Amino acid sequence: MSREFTIKVPASSANIGPGFDVLGIALNLYLSINVKIDAHQYGELSLQDPNNCILSYEGEGADVVPLQSDKNLLTQMALYVLRCHGINHFPLGTKISVHNQVPFGRGLGSSGTAVVGGALLGNAIGELGLSKQRCLDYCLMVERHPDNISATMMGGFVGSFLRQLSDKGYQLVHQPLKNVLENFSADSTIDAPLNLGTHVTYNWCQKIKCVAIIPQFEVSTSKSRSVLPESYKRADVVFNLQRLAVLTSAVGSDIPDPALIYPAMQDRLHQPYRKALIPGLSSVVSEFTPQTHTGLLGICLSGAGPTILCLATENFERIARDIVARFKQEKVECKWLLLEPAYDGATVEEVSKL
Amino acid sequence: MSREFTIKVPASSANIGPGFDVLGIALNLYLSINVKIDAHQYGELSLQDPNNCILSYEGEGADVVPLQSDKNLLTQMALYVLRCHGINHFPLGTKISVHNQVPFGRGLGSSGTAVVGGALLGNAIGELGLSKQRCLDYCLMVERHPDNISATMMGGFVGSFLRQLSDKGYQLVHQPLKNVLENFSADSTIDAPLNLGTHVTYNWCQKIKCVAIIPQFEVSTSKSRSVLPESYKRADVVFNLQRLAVLTSAVGSDIPDPALIYPAMQDRLHQPYRKALIPGLSSVVSEFTPQTHTGLLGICLSGAGPTILCLATENFERIARDIVARFKQEKVECKWLLLEPAYDGATVEEVSKL
Repeated sequence: MSREFTIKVPASSANIGPGFDVLGIALNLYLSINVKIDAHQYGELSLQDPNNCILSYEGEGADVVPLQSDKNLLTQMALYVLRCHGINHFPLGTKISVHNQVPFGRGLGSSGTAVVGGALLGNAIGELGLSKQRCLDYCLMVERHPDNISATMMGGFVGSFLRQLSDKGYQLVHQPLKNVLENFSADSTIDAPLNLGTHVTYNWCQKIKCVAIIPQFEVSTSKSRSVLPESYKRADVVFNLQRLAVLTSAVGSDIPDPALIYPAMQDRLHQPYRKALIPGLSSVVSEFTPQTHTGLLGICLSGAGPTILCLATENFERIARDIVARFKQEKVECKWLLLEPAYDGATVEEVSKL
Repeated sequence: MSREFTIKVPASSANIGPGFDVLGIALNLYLSINVKIDAHQYGELSLQDPNNCILSYEGEGADVVPLQSDKNLLTQMALYVLRCHGINHFPLGTKISVHNQVPFGRGLGSSGTAVVGGALLGNAIGELGLSKQRCLDYCLMVERHPDNISATMMGGFVGSFLRQLSDKGYQLVHQPLKNVLENFSADSTIDAPLNLGTHVTYNWCQKIKCVAIIPQFEVSTSKSRSVLPESYKRADVVFNLQRLAVLTSAVGSDIPDPALIYPAMQDRLHQPYRKALIPGLSSVVSEFTPQTHTGLLGICLSGAGPTILCLATENFERIARDIVARFKQEKVECKWLLLEPAYDGATVEEVSKL
């Protein structure tokens, strides 16, 4: 018996201006996972891995990613999902070939792609028949912030929240990855509760593209989070709430209005505190406007940065080149990509099954 | 020459759970203003008022509302708009008859109805031809919180924000009512800047009705605001942002989902602090759920309270009676109303012009 399937998992941009820890957009830059299961062809070689897995990895992050299945985040996640369903290892002769386009540590949700890809990998390998919504529960046990995860799994432009213990009928038991993956015996408390997360998908005007300006240095999420304050002034909170309420609706309009979207993408909860980590961010955010660049709708930090995301309806290349040049003045080298929402989110395609 | 027209201005409920200072719903409970201008019939009598206005007032608030045109909020607003356009007084023989259904100090936006009604009154009397959007600018010079004002003026379920000085091209100069209304000479700085506020209108599933439970005591907005903290923990801020992002979209669904809407109507920014002002609020918010009451979608404080707003699709009377009974245990008498969104917002109808 042999089997082959492919999983494609889109990158994502989280926060999107005022939507700190809330909004996410799936973007058409992918972590691609090709899986071949063939005990006859790969069986013997796969026994070198503790879980029968031959893992190869190309593209972004290939130089740093561990290839042992109990160390790699993608296969750890897959094993976690499998073990919650009584399956302890991959089938003999599992060959997983990863190609990754999503850069690490740039605010494009690379760890989210591994977590989502891993959950879908476990579901597909074990033929568990879990829905995407159920797979999301497993992801949210490991990754506390639903913004990247929900966008990457479900696709498009989404808003999401984690249920609280106080939400009647739901128990939210977050486990650090270490616990989730190490205590995978018959102890059922480690299985994911149902419906941990909730999300909605917003309309998105297809004229709006995303220009990602990617500085050539990494910012770790934990460092980028450590600069945030523990509390906020009420005026700053209301500032973001008001803009969030308008933004989620404004980008769905058939004729996107820069006079509405540009001010609605302003933020006071995370970007001002992260400016120190990203030379040039402050200048770019204040100097580039719909007045200086026709077609520009808004600018924000992507996730924890350092990537800058511009929403625009035209003039993509000029916007990108001018921002890259502005960063260069701060001695920050950037590359840029013209992206659009990955509306389908993560997908699994069965190639063959004999 | 004589003229008659009628202005109808709906009540509004602001905040709506997580949308503190952001969301508002116009509700079909009205401040109605009938205006007759007839110098022949009312001219002499109108000279008893400093601005030629015979003002009468029936219904809610009739016992406390001043009837002199430079003291009454409705006519003050009308005079403010007129004076920004070079018209200092009402025409000789202006007779304004107000009938008000909106209770004062209950969190149903009564002052917003007077401000919006006044702006439209000035526009209509002066035949200034201002759009509703432009009238909103004048309202936002006087009332700092756009949530009630935008809903009342525009109708339906809206989210809104005030532009900041830092929003390029806009100058936000808030003036206290006193300054706005007293310094109405030729000094043009007191005119409202353009596009002070921005709003979006969300979809609203017409199956959703609003049950308003109205305790028979008043809570002043200033007192209700004084109990709020000056700063908030990051976790509480994110809690509200996440729910706001989901709620605005969830109520537009053809089949409203209580499992989505109920948790999305939870709030940590204002309701917990206002519980002390409203005996029973805490119990009602925690004891009434979609499980205890079929059809119930969510519960929140309306504006600064004390009114409680329940969104529901059926069982309206049972929900209302049970909450009224629960409040009675706390010795709080309530009345209740079954309302729905006033989708058209404030309207002006010309009755006759000779």
